This record gives sequence, structure tokens and C-alpha cells, in this order.
Amino acid sequence: MGGARDLSDRSRVDPFIVMDVMERARAAEAAGRHVIHMEVGQPGTPAPAIARAALAREIDKGGLGYTVALGLPGLRSGIARLYSDWYGIDLNPDRVVVTAGASGAFVLAFTALFDAGDRVGLGLPGYPSYRHILHALSLDAVGIETRAEDRYQPAPTSIPEKLDGLILASPSNPAGTILDRDGLAALAQTCRARGISLISDEIYHGLHYGDRAVSALEVDDDVTVIGSFSKYFSMTGWRIGWAVVPERHIRTYERLAQNMFICAPHASQIAALHALDARDELEANVETYRANRARMIEGLPKAGLTRLAPPDGAFYVYADVSDLTQDSLALSGRLLDEAGVAVTPGLDFDPTRGSGTLRFSYARSTADIEEGLARLAAWGGW
Amino acid sequence: MGGARDLSDRSRVDPFIVMDVMERARAAEAAGRHVIHMEVGQPGTPAPAIARAALAREIDKGGLGYTVALGLPGLRSGIARLYSDWYGIDLNPDRVVVTAGASGAFVLAFTALFDAGDRVGLGLPGYPSYRHILHALSLDAVGIETRAEDRYQPAPTSIPEKLDGLILASPSNPAGTILDRDGLAALAQTCRARGISLISDEIYHGLHYGDRAVSALEVDDDVTVIGSFSKYFSMTGWRIGWAVVPERHIRTYERLAQNMFICAPHASQIAALHALDARDELEANVETYRANRARMIEGLPKAGLTRLAPPDGAFYVYADVSDLTQDSLALSGRLLDEAGVAVTPGLDFDPTRGSGTLRFSYARSTADIEEGLARLAAWGGW
Repeated sequence: MGGARDLSDRSRVDPFIVMDVMERARAAEAAGRHVIHMEVGQPGTPAPAIARAALAREIDKGGLGYTVALGLPGLRSGIARLYSDWYGIDLNPDRVVVTAGASGAFVLAFTALFDAGDRVGLGLPGYPSYRHILHALSLDAVGIETRAEDRYQPAPTSIPEKLDGLILASPSNPAGTILDRDGLAALAQTCRARGISLISDEIYHGLHYGDRAVSALEVDDDVTVIGSFSKYFSMTGWRIGWAVVPERHIRTYERLAQNMFICAPHASQIAALHALDARDELEANVETYRANRARMIEGLPKAGLTRLAPPDGAFYVYADVSDLTQDSLALSGRLLDEAGVAVTPGLDFDPTRGSGTLRFSYARSTADIEEGLARLAAWGGW
Repeated sequence: MGGARDLSDRSRVDPFIVMDVMERARAAEAAGRHVIHMEVGQPGTPAPAIARAALAREIDKGGLGYTVALGLPGLRSGIARLYSDWYGIDLNPDRVVVTAGASGAFVLAFTALFDAGDRVGLGLPGYPSYRHILHALSLDAVGIETRAEDRYQPAPTSIPEKLDGLILASPSNPAGTILDRDGLAALAQTCRARGISLISDEIYHGLHYGDRAVSALEVDDDVTVIGSFSKYFSMTGWRIGWAVVPERHIRTYERLAQNMFICAPHASQIAALHALDARDELEANVETYRANRARMIEGLPKAGLTRLAPPDGAFYVYADVSDLTQDSLALSGRLLDEAGVAVTPGLDFDPTRGSGTLRFSYARSTADIEEGLARLAAWGGW
């Protein structure tokens, strides 16, 4: 392949297996089959109507050049108000960094906080891009195997030695579990005591079905919090997220963002600004997820899957199928081919134990969820 | 500041000085003064009308979820056709990676090609974010001082030892000079012979006033080319760019993009797709720049500035004012305060010799350019 050294070592990251599932599902549909999509982690709904209308008006006017690197001031203020509304926190809007999706926020935060070779812990199962972005930035991702009895969240006693950073996610992906206030506080305290930079992934906040999720900012002000307009605000493809950073870090993020991104997409920033006011539409989406979740909790055991993580938030159910298979990839293939249901094998989230797990998404319409569950129950070929 | 090690070493990048100039200009305007903007490197025109209209229709329909990581297939094909139209190159659309602006393309390319500690050469003066993104990725930016008699472009004999990569820019920023085919071919040949990965920044292509710029792909197929919708297509704030990569690198870019970006903003991709068909409007913009450039070439010497780089393309004139000052930052302050003209001191582009240079942008309206030149001539306080 070309010369002595062509591509970098840091560029060697695993593919997303879910992408292969999506491609297989697309091919099946192209061949005329009907597929129920329980593999995709994005809402079936578009951006809120008032956000789309406001952007259409703005587009008509022209404009939409660069914004300042940290984002439109009105959007940063609006995000700060969200912390007041949701958690009762009085947040300085200057601490809000608007980013190109939560992905952009992770790239910025990892760059701001860590140097090549630093060690960053993360729970397994967990969002695969944490590991892959860390690797691409020459950082060492340290997997922490979590347990079903700990709701698939790291315990303070499980934090490895010599960490420079720790990523937490609540609600988590793929498990959908929420860390309660005491659990989050204990982890934050451990990080603080050991000089570990805590990064709290809160991109599924707003999507909870019992107690709301606690923000890490409620238990420790000196942390980095990542948020997103993709999930609760139903704006995946718009690529708008944010980071809340300590005040002393703001200028560093500004300089990094100026150089690495210039700014988040202006049109998306305008849509996001107006999406903040679309609570009625967004809460109606949450009610759909709530109904879907109830169907899942009832329907998956009837279909033969009983070992489920508690789906506190987000729109996922993580199922332990290790008593049924040790090849979740093959099982997901059979589910697609034989039952017409696309699901994600756990290998994306946990490279070893994921061979015995599946992730089901219930982000689509309730009718789709019901049909998917009926197909699973009728199939029964576990 | 907090614990033993709070922010990373890689996060220590210089601020953009032009941002300080923009803030001073904004403050002057807020105080009621009228400022002519010759500091900003972005078109005064919005995205093309047909692109905005097409996007407004699409927004009305809903949708706009994630796209595949490499970008909308139709957009990749459209960009590939551009290489046929502009250079007569038959480009495989699979080699086109749609990115979140050229910035995203640089982050991806540097990550794909280089490991921590690798050395990447770049001409000085040059776009400051090259240096700063490299530093943020733990790479070693190696400045190559270029000479006015070489049109501020690196010469093959000036390429330092032990480089892993080289960034070329034609038309360049800030100088606006174009490398001719022989010059580009000689540099590509040097890189190939020495195993240096060549990255060709071609984001100002389409903006030329004599011979068109040559793409690096015309002289060597095994290079990485960066393009953008920001300049010729007048879409800065939309954050859409691309990379053309060797075929054997496509899967690596796909995996990196999946993890680091998920996808470029969907709405911006749709606008970009339709902007490809807006040639009449875009060529009218070029005629404006052509008129502005003629005014600059005539007006700057009359205002007392005679040592100008040949402005072959882009929309900049780089002026050597080292016979007038060794403090270009102070001079730009006086120009703003006393003449009401905002310009960029060369320090952003060349940390040492930039103390004796200024960059003038002529991307705004011709009336603005004429007024700015009149103010400079009337001032004469060099």
C-alpha cells in the first residue's frame, strides 16, 4: 500500500457494525422486503416545526456567514436557560460552547484536556465513538467493564489506576440507564480526589420515563458536560451540540474551536435556537417514546427476551442474550432475514461481551414498535 | 489553575489576531463610526439563491436526519463532476469525502495521515489554522519561510529534511498567489521522491483572474486535495467542504468521519448540492472580485503601498509594509481608528515577518472597496 508508512496508526479504528446492519436492511428493502427499524439511534421525527419555519425565513433573507467560534450569543444564552429550567442551575452563558454536534464537543474536550498518551476511562458497554475518537487523537481508551447489577454504570471502586480522564454517560447508550444523584456524586468525588478530568455525556437528557437524569453540574461545578440537539430536540442531521466548560477553560475552547471548526453550522444554530421554544412538540415526542417503551417492556419478554437493562431514559433497550447465543452478529442477521426486524448487535458497544447482547431502539413510531414486537414474538427462533 | 495538570499542552494555540481586529471594528461601529471591512476573508454575498430555495423546500418536507458519513451520494458525484468541468479530470466520486467545512477535512486528513510527533511542513506566510490544528493533534508544524520573489510559495529546494507531510495552498492565503503547473509538479515530485504526504489546499479554486489554478490531482493522482464551498460558492457559515483522497484511503476516512463527525450537516449538504448548479450567480460574484481587484492594484500604490504580492486568485492582497513599520498590529489599529478601514496585520500568517505586512481582503462590494481605497489615500499617515 504505497510507501513505507502511508496511513497513520491513529487512523486504525473499528467500523460501526450498526452501519453494516443498516446497509443490509437497506438492501433487503431495495429487494422489496419490509423491514422494521430497531437498529437506528435517531428519532423518526424531524426538527421541530417552529425551528424549521424560523430557519426558512432566515434563509430567504440571505446572510448566514461565519458566526463567532463559540456560537450565536442568543443560542448560548438559551442553552444556559435550559440548565435553569431542567436542573435549577444558574449557568453563566459564557461557559456554553456551541459545537458541530456532540461529536465536535468530544473532539474539542479531548483535545483541550488531554495530551497524546493520556489515559481516559469509559464504561463498557458504551458509545463506540468515545474509544475511536480517543484513539484518533493518540489517547489511550481504558475500558471499564460494568455489570448488569450496577445498571451497566461504572462504580467508584471500579475506576482504574492512573487515569487522566473519565467519561460517564447518563442516560447511557446502549443500556439507557440513569445514574442517580448519589451515584453520580460519588463518581465525581472520586475523580476530584484523584485529579481525573470528568466528562459527562448528557446528550439523552430530556428523555427519561421516571426520575429525570441528574446533570454532573448539579454535583460538581468543575466538570465538562456534553449536550446535544440530536435526541430530545430531534435534530440529528443538523449537527448541533454543546459543551459546558469551567470558566477558566473558555478561552482555550474558543481558540481550539476557531482553528478546528471556525464555527458550528450557522443555519443549524438558528434552527436550534428556535427548537428551544418547541417544548410542546418535543414533549409529545417524549410521550411517543414513553408509549413505545411500555410496549417494549411488555413485548420483549413475551418474545423470549427477559434479561433487560432498566430502560430509564434515552430510547434503547439493551438485552442480554448470552443464554441464547454467543454470536450476536449472526443473530441480528437472522432477525433481519427471517423476522424482518433490524437490531444492533452489542459488539459495537462492548467488543468482547457484546457477542451476547443486542440493542433495540424504540425511537420510531409506536405502530412500527408494535409491528416489530409482533414479528419477534411470531419468530421465536432464538 | 485547578489541579496539577488542568489543560493539555496541545490545547495551547495562538488566538487569531484578525478576531481581535474584528472585535475592535465591531466596537467602533457600535460607537457610531463607519468602518470599511477589508479584514474579513469571506464573501459579502449569501449562498446562491437556487441553493437557498431548494433547501427551504426540503426543510418544509421534514427529514434531514443523519446522512452516511462520506456525504450524500449526489453531492459526491456533483463534486466529482466539478473536477471534470474545471480540470478535465475523470474523478471517481467514491474518492470524495464531504466534510464539515475545509476545517473538518484538515482534521480528518491530518488524523488519517500522521501520528503524534510527525513533522508537517507549511509555507510562511500561510493560513494560521494549519499550524494550530497540527499542534492540537500533537503534530509538529514546520514553517518554511517563503520569499516574495518565489511568489510566497515554497520552492522544492526549500523543503526541510525529515518531513512526513507538506501542505501547499494555491491560490494562497494571505498572498493570493497561484503555483503554476511546473511549480506544482516539481513540488509534488519532491514529495513523492522523499515519501512526504502532500496535502493540497485548493479552497480558493474558481477565484482566479488570469490563468486558472492547477489542481494537484492534475500532476499527481496520489495526493490529498482539500476543497470548500465557502469561497467560490459563497457558503462560509454553512460549513461544507471536501477532501479528495486516494482510493486505498477511502475506508479509513469513512471510519474516522463516522466517529469524529458522524456526517457533515445535512441541510448544508443539500444547499451545497444545488449550489453546484448556480454557476451564473457565482460567476457574477467573480466578476465583482475581478473589478475589486483592479481597483486594489491601482489604488493601493496610489495610497502609498507598492510592495504587493501578485494577487493571482482568492480575494486578498498581501502588502509588504516593512519599510513603513515593524509593528503591523499597531499600524492596523491606527488604520481602523484614524482612517476607518479594518485590515489584518500579517502576524496571523507569519509570526515573525508578519510584523511588517498587512493583508487586505477585497471580498466585499465594489463600492466598499472604492471607499476603503479613498480613505487609505486620504489618510496617508504611513
